[in-house]
Amino acid sequence: MRPIDALMDALPDGRVLTDPDVIDSYARDRTFLEPGKPLGVVLAASRDDVVTTMKWASEHRVPVVPRGGGTGLAGASVAGDGAIILSLARMTAIRELSPADEIAVVEPGVITADLDRAARKHGLMYAPDPSSYEISTIGGNLATNAGGLRCVKYGVTRDSALGLEVVLADGRILNTGRRTMKGVTGYDLTGLFVGSEGTLGVITAATVRLRRAPSGPPATFAAEFGSLRDAGAAVSAIMAAGCQPSLMELLDRATLEAIDDMRTFGLEAGTTAMLIGQSDAVDGQAVAERMERICMENGASFVAVSSSPQEAEELIGLRRMAYDAKERLGACLVEDVCVPRSVLPEMIIAIEAAAVRHGVKICTVAHAGDGNLHPVFIFDRGTVEPPPEVWAAADDVFTHALELGGTLTGEHGVGLLKQRWLAMEAGPVAAEVQRGIKAVFDPLGILNPGKAI
Amino acid sequence: MRPIDALMDALPDGRVLTDPDVIDSYARDRTFLEPGKPLGVVLAASRDDVVTTMKWASEHRVPVVPRGGGTGLAGASVAGDGAIILSLARMTAIRELSPADEIAVVEPGVITADLDRAARKHGLMYAPDPSSYEISTIGGNLATNAGGLRCVKYGVTRDSALGLEVVLADGRILNTGRRTMKGVTGYDLTGLFVGSEGTLGVITAATVRLRRAPSGPPATFAAEFGSLRDAGAAVSAIMAAGCQPSLMELLDRATLEAIDDMRTFGLEAGTTAMLIGQSDAVDGQAVAERMERICMENGASFVAVSSSPQEAEELIGLRRMAYDAKERLGACLVEDVCVPRSVLPEMIIAIEAAAVRHGVKICTVAHAGDGNLHPVFIFDRGTVEPPPEVWAAADDVFTHALELGGTLTGEHGVGLLKQRWLAMEAGPVAAEVQRGIKAVFDPLGILNPGKAI
Repeated sequence: MRPIDALMDALPDGRVLTDPDVIDSYARDRTFLEPGKPLGVVLAASRDDVVTTMKWASEHRVPVVPRGGGTGLAGASVAGDGAIILSLARMTAIRELSPADEIAVVEPGVITADLDRAARKHGLMYAPDPSSYEISTIGGNLATNAGGLRCVKYGVTRDSALGLEVVLADGRILNTGRRTMKGVTGYDLTGLFVGSEGTLGVITAATVRLRRAPSGPPATFAAEFGSLRDAGAAVSAIMAAGCQPSLMELLDRATLEAIDDMRTFGLEAGTTAMLIGQSDAVDGQAVAERMERICMENGASFVAVSSSPQEAEELIGLRRMAYDAKERLGACLVEDVCVPRSVLPEMIIAIEAAAVRHGVKICTVAHAGDGNLHPVFIFDRGTVEPPPEVWAAADDVFTHALELGGTLTGEHGVGLLKQRWLAMEAGPVAAEVQRGIKAVFDPLGILNPGKAI
Repeated sequence: MRPIDALMDALPDGRVLTDPDVIDSYARDRTFLEPGKPLGVVLAASRDDVVTTMKWASEHRVPVVPRGGGTGLAGASVAGDGAIILSLARMTAIRELSPADEIAVVEPGVITADLDRAARKHGLMYAPDPSSYEISTIGGNLATNAGGLRCVKYGVTRDSALGLEVVLADGRILNTGRRTMKGVTGYDLTGLFVGSEGTLGVITAATVRLRRAPSGPPATFAAEFGSLRDAGAAVSAIMAAGCQPSLMELLDRATLEAIDDMRTFGLEAGTTAMLIGQSDAVDGQAVAERMERICMENGASFVAVSSSPQEAEELIGLRRMAYDAKERLGACLVEDVCVPRSVLPEMIIAIEAAAVRHGVKICTVAHAGDGNLHPVFIFDRGTVEPPPEVWAAADDVFTHALELGGTLTGEHGVGLLKQRWLAMEAGPVAAEVQRGIKAVFDPLGILNPGKAI
């Protein structure tokens, strides 16, 4: 009997898919990375299914690649030869939502925006909102410690994770964390699992923190700049002035053109950058007007505070469209550097210089209030891999980010895509202790091998 | 040559103290726990001193007990026989404070309130504020993941830790984390070290996040209740109403009497509990009045919103005095349970019942907005250990906290004091993986053995 047959026998009918085309569609994420030839896909419907799969995988030493919505941008759920793909997308129960305690207990397949909507019914929100939040899952968000637009004010996914139920490599169940707002019993295993990209265990439930939703719609401004540097300086000035925006997004000319090409919004000839900001504070309108003034003082050619929530929604909608718009231009290498906020203008200059130096088209959007930039390197869809000049430009961008005190990845994770640069940032001691931690949880090395560390 | 002589040779003159009385004064924290007979004390003045000490300790297999201000309440820095005590209290440099990036790089011996004051000069604050913040150190706060009064709004120490410089057990230097607001390169080693009570490495520098200080003084209210349950219900109602207080402290009758005994403040005969709350929001005065109304609706006998910042400071000062006041009553077993906010009244009832059942005096203060209660069990200073009825009452309190979905320790840590209850909460799988992680960092078991896990 083949190992996969034993797995099919052990799981309820219909859980394992082995059609090669179906497998291939589950073996990819949103990167250009080509998968190998996995053995099959498990559509887990319960924790028991996950336990069965992991026990089988340990027995047969089969690599397991957990996945949620497949919206990752670093290759963490791209599956290799001989692996079993473990989809958690069918575990979609919101087991509990307690308005009084401001927590929810959710399964990993819950779509992030669905949890947010469920919370809003009680005057609460689930704050982390990656751009993909209508199609990505809580499990995937936890595995990558996803950021998002609102995290400039409310923090990243880890800041909302209180406790986890995890199936370990050998099928044992580990409960981490707590239901309380605070707790220091033992090491922070919850924080360790968040962002570990499925390399330490499979999350089958999470207790997450909800937050009070703002009482009214946020006040929104949009500013156009003739210079990216001016826009970067405006961001620094807004943050330094203590405006505490709930969203602060920067789009460069190339991104704006791609969006305008997809849905015409009236891009002006002289506009090089657009800054979109929001305040959801009680005095949000006054804060938005203050941010508007700071933009003018920093050289904006045009600034407007939205007069209606609909107008504001359209602006934010443009931003959320950015990645789809870029995918129309060609294949995309999406990067994710994060730098200290004060050097945002320098980082933008370095990205522009890399584009010119290597003759590569780079479109940049940024969660600017966090110093987190997404330079997207566009290349010909016909090639399997990015051409050398794209890698060279990406090298330059990473080198500069690290020189400026930054990091390779603010929110997308390491996956496969950033392995080639990892040593530049982490250093040999960190690499060694991380391998040691990995071995504690996964001595056989079957959990998403080759990812994250 | 004795091992300690080799250490004295290896370090600059004056770094090692061996006078038994001096050692004893460094071997304690703020618990009643009796230390053993340590070999000596290292007063580290630099990272190099720490590296030298750890290399020596590894070579000679000597246990190392790191310590900061010695204000711990769980015994994490109580030193045993044959240990070397490694004091970081002299490493007091604020290496960098960047208002633009809202970060500081600090050495572990910096007094927490000193960092906060340094930040305030730039319109910023260091948010975590354990009651001990005028005498405790950043290093100790990181080692225990200290909470505090403001953490109901701004989070605990871990939420302000971005990156660490750590000396490992064998003297190697590990840099974790980053200077940026976000970052997901590799596992969250920063979060792992925070709260690990010196069992994984010795923190020699930390990059911490600063936050914008509120623009004006907070609005403060104080409410008196004839019933602790009513006060607990008021807390739940205030939080559920989305008031987002920046401080929300509950003091029971026994605590109020102890404080009144130390500094008379006019305690009314019928007052069983006092609730002190603050809002530092832009509309803080309105929020404080809203909290006042909610208290009245929940049975408060008297509520007042402070008319001046001085009056507010005095109120908060009373709260910060609570532990000193209790120490005047006798020896203290300080506990630290944390429960989901909605069951705060039930937890208070359980504490009162345990006091009556076992005939033990318990004074309780709570960071009520977080559901974090500090029942302090008073016993005769003449005894070395708490008497059996105190342990029995504590058992009851822990059992109830766990039954209510809570945790043994919200912010003080496990140390030595909570070892006896640890298995009740963590379970065998968590215990095993934690021991595995410990072994990765400290294979010889020399770093603060017997603590935290």
